[in-house]
Amino acid sequence: MWYVWCVLLLYFSICCLSSIIMWVLNNSRAAAEAEAVAEISCSGHGIASLDGFFGNGNEPVCECNTCYKGPDCSNFIPHCTANADRYHPATHDMMNNSLCLHSTSSALVVSGWNGMSYTYNDNTFFSQQLERLIHKLHAFVGNAITRNRYIVFGAGSTQVLSAAAYALSLQNTSSQSPTRVVASIPYHTLHKDQMEYFNSEKFKFEGDPYTWKNRSDGTANVIEFVTTPNNPDGRLSGAILDGPNVKTIYDRAYYWPHFTPIPAPADEDLMVFTLSKLTGHAGTRFGWAIIKDETVFNRMVTHMKMNSLGVSKDAQFRAFKLLKALLEEGTGIFDFAHRTMKRRWERLAAIISSSNPYAWLKCEREEDKDCYEVLMAANIIGRRGNVFGSEDHYVRLRPPLA
Amino acid sequence: MWYVWCVLLLYFSICCLSSIIMWVLNNSRAAAEAEAVAEISCSGHGIASLDGFFGNGNEPVCECNTCYKGPDCSNFIPHCTANADRYHPATHDMMNNSLCLHSTSSALVVSGWNGMSYTYNDNTFFSQQLERLIHKLHAFVGNAITRNRYIVFGAGSTQVLSAAAYALSLQNTSSQSPTRVVASIPYHTLHKDQMEYFNSEKFKFEGDPYTWKNRSDGTANVIEFVTTPNNPDGRLSGAILDGPNVKTIYDRAYYWPHFTPIPAPADEDLMVFTLSKLTGHAGTRFGWAIIKDETVFNRMVTHMKMNSLGVSKDAQFRAFKLLKALLEEGTGIFDFAHRTMKRRWERLAAIISSSNPYAWLKCEREEDKDCYEVLMAANIIGRRGNVFGSEDHYVRLRPPLA
Repeated sequence: MWYVWCVLLLYFSICCLSSIIMWVLNNSRAAAEAEAVAEISCSGHGIASLDGFFGNGNEPVCECNTCYKGPDCSNFIPHCTANADRYHPATHDMMNNSLCLHSTSSALVVSGWNGMSYTYNDNTFFSQQLERLIHKLHAFVGNAITRNRYIVFGAGSTQVLSAAAYALSLQNTSSQSPTRVVASIPYHTLHKDQMEYFNSEKFKFEGDPYTWKNRSDGTANVIEFVTTPNNPDGRLSGAILDGPNVKTIYDRAYYWPHFTPIPAPADEDLMVFTLSKLTGHAGTRFGWAIIKDETVFNRMVTHMKMNSLGVSKDAQFRAFKLLKALLEEGTGIFDFAHRTMKRRWERLAAIISSSNPYAWLKCEREEDKDCYEVLMAANIIGRRGNVFGSEDHYVRLRPPLA
Repeated sequence: MWYVWCVLLLYFSICCLSSIIMWVLNNSRAAAEAEAVAEISCSGHGIASLDGFFGNGNEPVCECNTCYKGPDCSNFIPHCTANADRYHPATHDMMNNSLCLHSTSSALVVSGWNGMSYTYNDNTFFSQQLERLIHKLHAFVGNAITRNRYIVFGAGSTQVLSAAAYALSLQNTSSQSPTRVVASIPYHTLHKDQMEYFNSEKFKFEGDPYTWKNRSDGTANVIEFVTTPNNPDGRLSGAILDGPNVKTIYDRAYYWPHFTPIPAPADEDLMVFTLSKLTGHAGTRFGWAIIKDETVFNRMVTHMKMNSLGVSKDAQFRAFKLLKALLEEGTGIFDFAHRTMKRRWERLAAIISSSNPYAWLKCEREEDKDCYEVLMAANIIGRRGNVFGSEDHYVRLRPPLA
């Protein structure tokens, strides 16, 4: 039973992260343009887009909540299908929460000449100021040891995770065969998709680590992805494999107090975090890795150079401003996020008890082999279990967005 | 002789691009924080960093020009070595140019809730507003045909170029051997480094296309990188190879009126441009490809998804604001950049005639096998010819930054 609750908690929480925008909603120091954008109401069913405001003929463009459309989000879409699959923080209707009024400014002003160079004063791609702030953040939250650790930034945890896989594979150059990359089922589809897409001579995705446990060929080089808490099922999992040839990449995206209790700071060799699951700012594309080994750090820096010549300074400016606002709020932001999640969780539980779907759903009837189709018939979009290496008797759901 | 001048022009122009910041320097509509940053003088030898201003204890952090250091750039570094290798637009001392006063505002204000979602309203990673602006820009400048073409954004041309290589290699799945990737000597080191780093089963860097011209094995799949105007030597080069199995990626980074005459709009199957060589904003990491073929477009979109789940919206906001300011200025920006380059070119020519180094330098004496070391002895850092597939009798120089 705890398992079901855990699953529900994680799913609900992923979806409600955008609530945190309330803590970053004060534009008292921002200029007229931003204020004008804020004044666009989008009929109460969307958020005015900055990019839209500056667009063709200065017409506002609204990003509409689910089930609404039109330039000002005033048109309700009849028979709207609830999308419980993808994460759309900006579509939530968070603008009316009174907490906005008390939040620290997170508005950012960038002048024409800011951040022009590829690098910073120290010839790196990474802002020292932002790095110091990330150290402070983890010390404050207590979710990771960062003292005497190296930090690498990337375009979201997506880019950081593949950088880590390249860096750890390169360590095993003596081997002729590619490094095996494994992740426990159900795994985050990204791990599999990325490894199969890049399809390097250096690594191959080989599925579940249990397949390789206690095998005699201990010489094979292995990278295990451990997502903890796990996406999609919320497990607080650990590594399955160990040994001198096993490297582990810990995806710690959900290791924040609004998702899970934090009994102790994590202290693994290589841990990955992302802004999207902390403040909800997925569009900024900002993630970071905390690394013990200097060689691995240097290889990840090389990866960032080869891949995109560093990380957008605009994304770094933004991350800096958001994390600073977050730290100025203290623990309040996590308390608030936790309360919001609890309320939504209760709401989801009520929906579940009345309508009978689940967050990590198993269609129990033998004939319901394709659980996804069963739900589609009820206008609910989930994601097939096979996407996570599981069977199609299972479906992953996110809670409704409205 | 035209060749030497062409080389000089290109090198000088790369280095002076940052002058364009003058056109984007008006912060009349920007808020107090940005104004406060602007008021930090950095002793006249640097630019105040936005990120620094928001840093530890709100102390300003200056990005110092070459040969200056210290928190306010007041310390001159004795026996300073001129770095003619790397591109540092932000380190130029452009702040005093009177054109600043007349420029259109390029200041950007981003509120806490802007751009939170991974995607835009149309479920893509790319802003339609920005795409429309890029169409306008090319139509205005007349340097590329974009009508009925697809556009993909990436984290600088760096990421866009590798996306193109992946996309074109994937087209050749019937072949067992990897696609050959070639680039005429001297080539941009990035092309070689990226292909060798990613080292996919799909492609292998094979050096100069002349090696493969008129070879009998016409079945081999080939990708040719054509940088035109070329980096490092400024040639207006074309493709060397053709045939049904040859795909060409045109790196058009320098195809703007301040670098070269534009006799006609370019109209190749796949062309890559970048903000860094247009406005000098290298740190934003924003580049784009213009593509004829829908399948190639879709593959490049997939690459962006696998690599970094799209492009930072903050980088897209910034690019939008800068390109809008640029278009509002009309041709003036290119005239200004051209004038500035001409002035610097004349200055470089004077330096050359008095001190005897060159922009694409050949050390003619047989004993000067390592031209890089010869220059280092004179406190000038260049880049070895072998980095471009050439001999170490050659060195690539950028003009002095101050």
